[in-house]
Amino acid sequence: MTDLLVHDAAQVVTPDDGGIETVPAGTVAVEDGAVVAVGPTDEVVSDHPPGAASTAIDASGKVVLPGFVDPHTHAVFAGDRSDEFAAKLRGADYQEILESGGGIHRTVRAVREASLETLVSNLLDHLDVMLAHGTTTAEVKSGYGLDVETELRMLAAIDEADDRHPVDLIPTFMGPHAVPPGTDAEEYVDRVVAAQIPAVVDQGIAEFCDVFCEAGVFSVEQSRRVLTAAAGADLTPKIHAEEFERTGGAQLAADLGAASADHLLQATDEDVAALDEAGVTPVLLPGTAFTLATDYADAAAFVDAGMPVALATDFNPNCCSESMEFAMELACHGMRMDPAAALRATTANAARAVDRGRSIGRLAAGAAGDLLVADAPELAHIPYNFGVSTVETVVKGGEVVYSE
Amino acid sequence: MTDLLVHDAAQVVTPDDGGIETVPAGTVAVEDGAVVAVGPTDEVVSDHPPGAASTAIDASGKVVLPGFVDPHTHAVFAGDRSDEFAAKLRGADYQEILESGGGIHRTVRAVREASLETLVSNLLDHLDVMLAHGTTTAEVKSGYGLDVETELRMLAAIDEADDRHPVDLIPTFMGPHAVPPGTDAEEYVDRVVAAQIPAVVDQGIAEFCDVFCEAGVFSVEQSRRVLTAAAGADLTPKIHAEEFERTGGAQLAADLGAASADHLLQATDEDVAALDEAGVTPVLLPGTAFTLATDYADAAAFVDAGMPVALATDFNPNCCSESMEFAMELACHGMRMDPAAALRATTANAARAVDRGRSIGRLAAGAAGDLLVADAPELAHIPYNFGVSTVETVVKGGEVVYSE
Repeated sequence: MTDLLVHDAAQVVTPDDGGIETVPAGTVAVEDGAVVAVGPTDEVVSDHPPGAASTAIDASGKVVLPGFVDPHTHAVFAGDRSDEFAAKLRGADYQEILESGGGIHRTVRAVREASLETLVSNLLDHLDVMLAHGTTTAEVKSGYGLDVETELRMLAAIDEADDRHPVDLIPTFMGPHAVPPGTDAEEYVDRVVAAQIPAVVDQGIAEFCDVFCEAGVFSVEQSRRVLTAAAGADLTPKIHAEEFERTGGAQLAADLGAASADHLLQATDEDVAALDEAGVTPVLLPGTAFTLATDYADAAAFVDAGMPVALATDFNPNCCSESMEFAMELACHGMRMDPAAALRATTANAARAVDRGRSIGRLAAGAAGDLLVADAPELAHIPYNFGVSTVETVVKGGEVVYSE
Repeated sequence: MTDLLVHDAAQVVTPDDGGIETVPAGTVAVEDGAVVAVGPTDEVVSDHPPGAASTAIDASGKVVLPGFVDPHTHAVFAGDRSDEFAAKLRGADYQEILESGGGIHRTVRAVREASLETLVSNLLDHLDVMLAHGTTTAEVKSGYGLDVETELRMLAAIDEADDRHPVDLIPTFMGPHAVPPGTDAEEYVDRVVAAQIPAVVDQGIAEFCDVFCEAGVFSVEQSRRVLTAAAGADLTPKIHAEEFERTGGAQLAADLGAASADHLLQATDEDVAALDEAGVTPVLLPGTAFTLATDYADAAAFVDAGMPVALATDFNPNCCSESMEFAMELACHGMRMDPAAALRATTANAARAVDRGRSIGRLAAGAAGDLLVADAPELAHIPYNFGVSTVETVVKGGEVVYSE
């Protein structure tokens, strides 16, 4: 019995490790939560007639694509920082905002004061917005606690929201997101290694460990200590690298065989080559550059090297956009990525950045039945029609979980 | 009897000619299609109790603002040019696209072949998207016909869509949008003046006349001929000025007392002063710069001069975004406009650009009952939460016409 048939699409888009194909006049069949057939409508419907499917969606004139995978978010937090955004537009600089009690430490205070239920509720609200814009799997980082108790509560919130929402969540521990007031980076890294990582491992929720390797935050050596300890405790390394200044974080990612190196605005040719050689997935975050009004990362450097470049939202109180569809639009309009490359970067390559490269972000027999129907006559129309969402229907594990 | 009460908002935003105010804990009452009261909830509900209103909307924790006015669109067209967008991202330049049969003349061919019903149907689809992103009034230009018959059909399509859709449309004749193949600008302007303008006036739909004053398209003198003839026939002048090269179009707008001068990326200090002196509304189109990946217009030059700067989408097949909310986001993140200034630019000032400065784009007694409820705790949150829509409910003339 076919559980779901999405039939007669103008195009079915099938990104994978090798590239991206578009099947004109295509159909997808899903059974028991997984894709069982993708191909030309005539071929698929002979085995899976629409009349015999529990649910049949007519995708005539529309594009079918895998659900987006967002491989980098800080989506669990409390408080709103729109007033800081307005202050920045009126000329306040980051230092002034920090001195007036704003910035990341304001979010840390709000998160420390928030109950588990508040964190879960806030996260669920954001997941609704993510889902409506096509995200079916998202990585979510802790990192607004900066102490054992709050970091564990953030991870517990991610775990509970994952249970309660169709969007699948991948939890990342990011205790070393900032240096808490009243200590220094070296001392804080001691605490992360001695207390936070063992507690996180004991809790058993987090899968990855991330660190903000940046001038004035955590050095390459401090980042290495954290990620080495994490890897020894079976937390796969990820890293925020080369965002504002080049510090060597990309080379560290290559040394450690991190799952991904993220941001990479200041990465050099040597950094690109090292990541490529080591098989580290580069994750670019165009929303951050958009809201900071800085240059974008050099996407072409990674694409031209044949690397599986991924895109993510970086959703957080300082980059307040939940939409992977919009990240794809920024990649095209801002970074000048080809729509097909951008689509691969939001699906198959994004899955690779969270070690899910075989199971999600693709439409092939055996992959998860996570897919989107977009109101677009062809793939390129999705980013072409910018600032609005073309996502009409979202399917997760073969079930319709959002419909416009 | 109060027809509609939107009560207990976290903020009611009231832009007008003098600036913009925010009323905390505010309520708006609408009767017979027009606003009758705006103010602190306690004051308004004493005269207009929620129980006595035909429709009451609880806007707790949300922002109420006027419906957006989009003062510059080319929203009636046929065909899709997403393939050209992809080709540009792969490196094709505009000249190559034109030579392969693309660009504006491709849209002209598609529009000439389209029936009135096709044009109306396409426009209605786009108006649905506009409405869902908060636009309650939009200017729409002709200009993909470039001959009498098709220009009149485009204006008739605007008129019919206006009748059939909640979004109010303001029709602009823009025969001089491009020089049709097989003629030259001078000869084509002769035809516009001798044949198109009289036919358009005879048809009686268009209210404004616009011209693409640009190097290689229509010169300042040709634009002057068109707009002088139009003004003599009671079509109010508008102008596309100083977009790619500075030609003097802004000075022409000042000379003629145009309702607006639009684009203005290359405007000089003298141009700004001339527009200010003449009371011409500057209309900035950040979506065009976003999709072309060029610099934005210098919004601060107009804001700092105290001018009523307006924003618009420029929605067209080469700038495919229907969303005024996104235009506001681009103005903030890209042009670094203050959210309050950007909100005034999408409402009261945008209304001024289409000679509706007293009746729409504001929330004050006597203004049209066109308003939005945004899922945002304060005004700045609307652009802060970028790439997604915060518009939850749209009211037109006191009636709920969109609800998320």
